[in-house]
Amino acid sequence: MGKLLAVGTVAFDKIETPFGKTDKILGGSGSFIGLSASTLNVDVGIVSVVGGDFPKEHFKLMQNKGINTEGIEIVKNGKTFFWSGKYHNDMNSRDTLVTELNVLENFNPIVPNSFKDAEVVMLGNLHPLTQISVLNQMKESPELVVLDTMNFWMNVALNDLHSVLKRVDVITINDEEARQLSGQYSLVNAAKKIHTMGPKYVIIKKGEHGALLFNEGKMFFAPALPLAEVFDPTGAGDTFAGGFCAYLAKTEDYSFENMKNAIIYGSNLASFCVEKFGTERMEKLTKDEIKPRLRMFKDLTTFNIEIE
Amino acid sequence: MGKLLAVGTVAFDKIETPFGKTDKILGGSGSFIGLSASTLNVDVGIVSVVGGDFPKEHFKLMQNKGINTEGIEIVKNGKTFFWSGKYHNDMNSRDTLVTELNVLENFNPIVPNSFKDAEVVMLGNLHPLTQISVLNQMKESPELVVLDTMNFWMNVALNDLHSVLKRVDVITINDEEARQLSGQYSLVNAAKKIHTMGPKYVIIKKGEHGALLFNEGKMFFAPALPLAEVFDPTGAGDTFAGGFCAYLAKTEDYSFENMKNAIIYGSNLASFCVEKFGTERMEKLTKDEIKPRLRMFKDLTTFNIEIE
Repeated sequence: MGKLLAVGTVAFDKIETPFGKTDKILGGSGSFIGLSASTLNVDVGIVSVVGGDFPKEHFKLMQNKGINTEGIEIVKNGKTFFWSGKYHNDMNSRDTLVTELNVLENFNPIVPNSFKDAEVVMLGNLHPLTQISVLNQMKESPELVVLDTMNFWMNVALNDLHSVLKRVDVITINDEEARQLSGQYSLVNAAKKIHTMGPKYVIIKKGEHGALLFNEGKMFFAPALPLAEVFDPTGAGDTFAGGFCAYLAKTEDYSFENMKNAIIYGSNLASFCVEKFGTERMEKLTKDEIKPRLRMFKDLTTFNIEIE
Repeated sequence: MGKLLAVGTVAFDKIETPFGKTDKILGGSGSFIGLSASTLNVDVGIVSVVGGDFPKEHFKLMQNKGINTEGIEIVKNGKTFFWSGKYHNDMNSRDTLVTELNVLENFNPIVPNSFKDAEVVMLGNLHPLTQISVLNQMKESPELVVLDTMNFWMNVALNDLHSVLKRVDVITINDEEARQLSGQYSLVNAAKKIHTMGPKYVIIKKGEHGALLFNEGKMFFAPALPLAEVFDPTGAGDTFAGGFCAYLAKTEDYSFENMKNAIIYGSNLASFCVEKFGTERMEKLTKDEIKPRLRMFKDLTTFNIEIE
């Protein structure tokens, strides 16, 4: 079993959906990635930063799940990154109400010694220079580097993004971002273009429409599980990415064929994540719940047409 | 092998896409359904109406493909239904430039005697009263009645639509239409609601995002094949429906399990349809081309995650 190192945010979220609203709850890409990985008992370490206002209970929760928090710096006299958003009725779009970077503004990631030899590195959605800094601290070249990014970094730090992309094996990106990054409308052509920027594997996330994996001419498609209700989409993408990375670290098989399974595993976790506010569902998720839903993914996509 | 009877339009289309434009070419749901069904050598009859201006070559083309055209009435002094549209750059939206109903305005469908015992009836997107009239002419109750409709009929003839829905086994509808018909945003809940209106099977078409099949709690998802270029989406939905119906008529197995195969078969044909203008690609499609692409659908969706 390989180790997984993930850099991402550990934050406070305040969320409003048509189903209700929360106070400041645990959020951030690092939190969701860690919780995802913990479902497979993978040795996962999170690199992040929080302020003195970050409750000990949250640390305790992560540690109880087997998440290594050594790499989460505490800036005593700083405040934790805070995001607040409100989802529209269709749950596919949202307005950001507040973004307070706080301690994230001067975030200088420190990879703990115990994770400098991690086989899988997940570079969560942060400034490309922060992502590069994490890569530069690794002792040896990781087996797999996975990067998440967003349109914001394409707008303000495109050159830095291109620098880190050269060192990345897998990029996860949504459809609109893939179009922006590549200048191609067709996702097939977008993936082709992004391959030339570095990543041999391109995962295009389409939210409720599933995810596509491209690998230099080969394709795989994973549907999202159709759900009667999406309660809160926050963290679904990070949960997906965390499940994907953890599955690969666990199996230590970084082939295209095994990435298909990893994508299904991640999609499955994401289908749980959206059932409650924030990290609530992921905190309580058990292995006994995961298996039957994997079976649903299988049933959802299996057909037996005869191809003579 | 069962017979397939389809009522639909046989029309002239004039299409503009970012790739070019056409003159008046063969179009209409009946034409696409017939061409789809011909790929399986299914005994297919089309019920429709054209004007005296409809070229004999188009009839000849259909007959050469084994499509029975007895049910296509020719109104000598009338003009054929004409539609003209222009697709936007994203190919997902279009403007209708011209709609001339012409002979379709007083269309009174006549089912030929030789197809009154068809096992499968496809009610193409027409006024619900036209669809009912076709059903009323069938000698015995068909094994399977499939209906296509659109938001327009929900707006102008909702009661009639509900009447015909009571007699329908399978409805094919796009996601926005499913939401409008059911008043439910979630597609899972929309399908549940539509079941109560009659159809035990609900197919929700999501264009480039694939199609979902619901059957009272059971679900199946078929992706659309990711394509580098969509040249002209006209007729893709009808080609899909035609392939779906023809596959079921051919195999005479109307189970949920076999419908999965039928949806994949229809999705496969639709992936060809969009490669050229109008019916051009479907006219020249060979069986040797169909099989390798079915294999691509299999590869696109197959994974082997272990579920202990």
